[in-house]
Amino acid sequence: MLGRLDYVDSPSARSVRAGDRLRVIAPSGPFDVERFHAGVAFLRERYEVVFDDDIVTRTGYLAGDDARRLRELEAALDDPDATGIVCARGGFGATRLLAHLSPDRVRAAPKLLVGFSDVTALHALWARAGVPSLHAPMVAWLGGAEDAAREDLQRALEGARRGFSSLRVLARGTAEGPIVGGNLAVLAALVGTPHAPPIDGAVLLLEEVGEAPYRVDRMLTTLHHAGWLDRVAGVALGDFVRCDPGAHGVRVEEVLEERLGALGVPVVAGLPVGHGDRNEPIHLGARVRVAAPPSP
Amino acid sequence: MLGRLDYVDSPSARSVRAGDRLRVIAPSGPFDVERFHAGVAFLRERYEVVFDDDIVTRTGYLAGDDARRLRELEAALDDPDATGIVCARGGFGATRLLAHLSPDRVRAAPKLLVGFSDVTALHALWARAGVPSLHAPMVAWLGGAEDAAREDLQRALEGARRGFSSLRVLARGTAEGPIVGGNLAVLAALVGTPHAPPIDGAVLLLEEVGEAPYRVDRMLTTLHHAGWLDRVAGVALGDFVRCDPGAHGVRVEEVLEERLGALGVPVVAGLPVGHGDRNEPIHLGARVRVAAPPSP
Repeated sequence: MLGRLDYVDSPSARSVRAGDRLRVIAPSGPFDVERFHAGVAFLRERYEVVFDDDIVTRTGYLAGDDARRLRELEAALDDPDATGIVCARGGFGATRLLAHLSPDRVRAAPKLLVGFSDVTALHALWARAGVPSLHAPMVAWLGGAEDAAREDLQRALEGARRGFSSLRVLARGTAEGPIVGGNLAVLAALVGTPHAPPIDGAVLLLEEVGEAPYRVDRMLTTLHHAGWLDRVAGVALGDFVRCDPGAHGVRVEEVLEERLGALGVPVVAGLPVGHGDRNEPIHLGARVRVAAPPSP
Repeated sequence: MLGRLDYVDSPSARSVRAGDRLRVIAPSGPFDVERFHAGVAFLRERYEVVFDDDIVTRTGYLAGDDARRLRELEAALDDPDATGIVCARGGFGATRLLAHLSPDRVRAAPKLLVGFSDVTALHALWARAGVPSLHAPMVAWLGGAEDAAREDLQRALEGARRGFSSLRVLARGTAEGPIVGGNLAVLAALVGTPHAPPIDGAVLLLEEVGEAPYRVDRMLTTLHHAGWLDRVAGVALGDFVRCDPGAHGVRVEEVLEERLGALGVPVVAGLPVGHGDRNEPIHLGARVRVAAPPSP
């Protein structure tokens, strides 16, 4: 039998509707401007899209310095007419802003955050605020995306939810809890800081790109030693892309199975979520049920 | 004026002497056997060297499974006739053993631990135990080392201490404290776990190899957010080797200066310590004085 992950609560009333205002921000790295504008054009077919002119700033590996990116994020949070905040691209940099942001500010005027990868740092802030967010493709990616993927995103923005089936089972069992997480490296970097998401009783979503298997091992070891893996209700694994074996020949799947297979909670793998060809939207903060049945 | 780092306390009575027994262990990754035996031959010119036959085991990126590496380390810790424990090589794997080891066991029969890189995880255990250790080249490297470097190691094993001068000054001031640390990635992976070294009032030693500047930024951001950088007395930077700028052109030196230059504590850089051509021994746990004077 294959595993499943299904939503078990009702969709939050809070979602985006046609005609709503979306704020586009770049809290992390710089992006391809042409693809960005193509993504904005797609969103504008259905929503009002607002972004600062200086969003295209490049400051090394950052989309402008911390002050610019923070100002942009705060303006989006404080915009009373916006219902969503959509990130332009990941990379690195969102984590740097966390010391200047509080869950209270997110909770004061909740908006649907959209992004993944480095934006995992902001999803953690939303999780601390108890506000749902959408782990999904970002604006600069939408520019080159297929129609089906764009439509998936649009439907998810407006509250549509679709579970995942045909998942590989790494460890059996069933569990329910809010789904929390995202990129493993970003999450591991939040361990031991005040900015880590609440993971007690959660279903932990993990995906990764471009990390050697021994590095994935190191990150999972950090989560182990910090007690995260004792406290989660279950684990859901998305894609682990370009996590290729080095000279030692260990595949990342072996590491995941070895480090996560004996936690005593269900672990499913193969969600089409992350840096792979498909990156289906997933509603973080929603209550999900992981079903990882025994083989027939 | 250039900076300095000097030892300010008396050498510990605990050091290795000619004729002493050294236990060689491989707590991390597998190694080149020929170079290992050359390194052992060098050590045997002056010491009794003991190691398990199965030290050459290869289990993927590990020098044998956790049980083998733990057994080997525990046997070394418990050997009443050994005064030093010298690691064969770094890589990855020492961190995995930490959950099975206590500072009490290190303290019960203190031995000088020798290694660096991944062995930073064990130096952290020694620091928690209050037992000095030696951040220095390892056995598989000694096999191919120059005579001067080998002699440096032998002298340091037996208690010789030599400070560092002509250091670059990233932030001015003077500070005293025990020197603690090692590899940045390994330390960042210990943040938020029970296995992190005590860093309050310490001079934090950091070195790195093969990490892009944005990753060094992410790791330092973790240390920032976890409060480590508010609690250290000073920072001493070794080599940052192959931490090359990506397409964005940011050099690792810029990241180090930006993230560490405004802490309000002295920061010196350029210690010949880490993965560079020279890796001079440094006595972790010893009390040092960092002097980072203003430019003339």
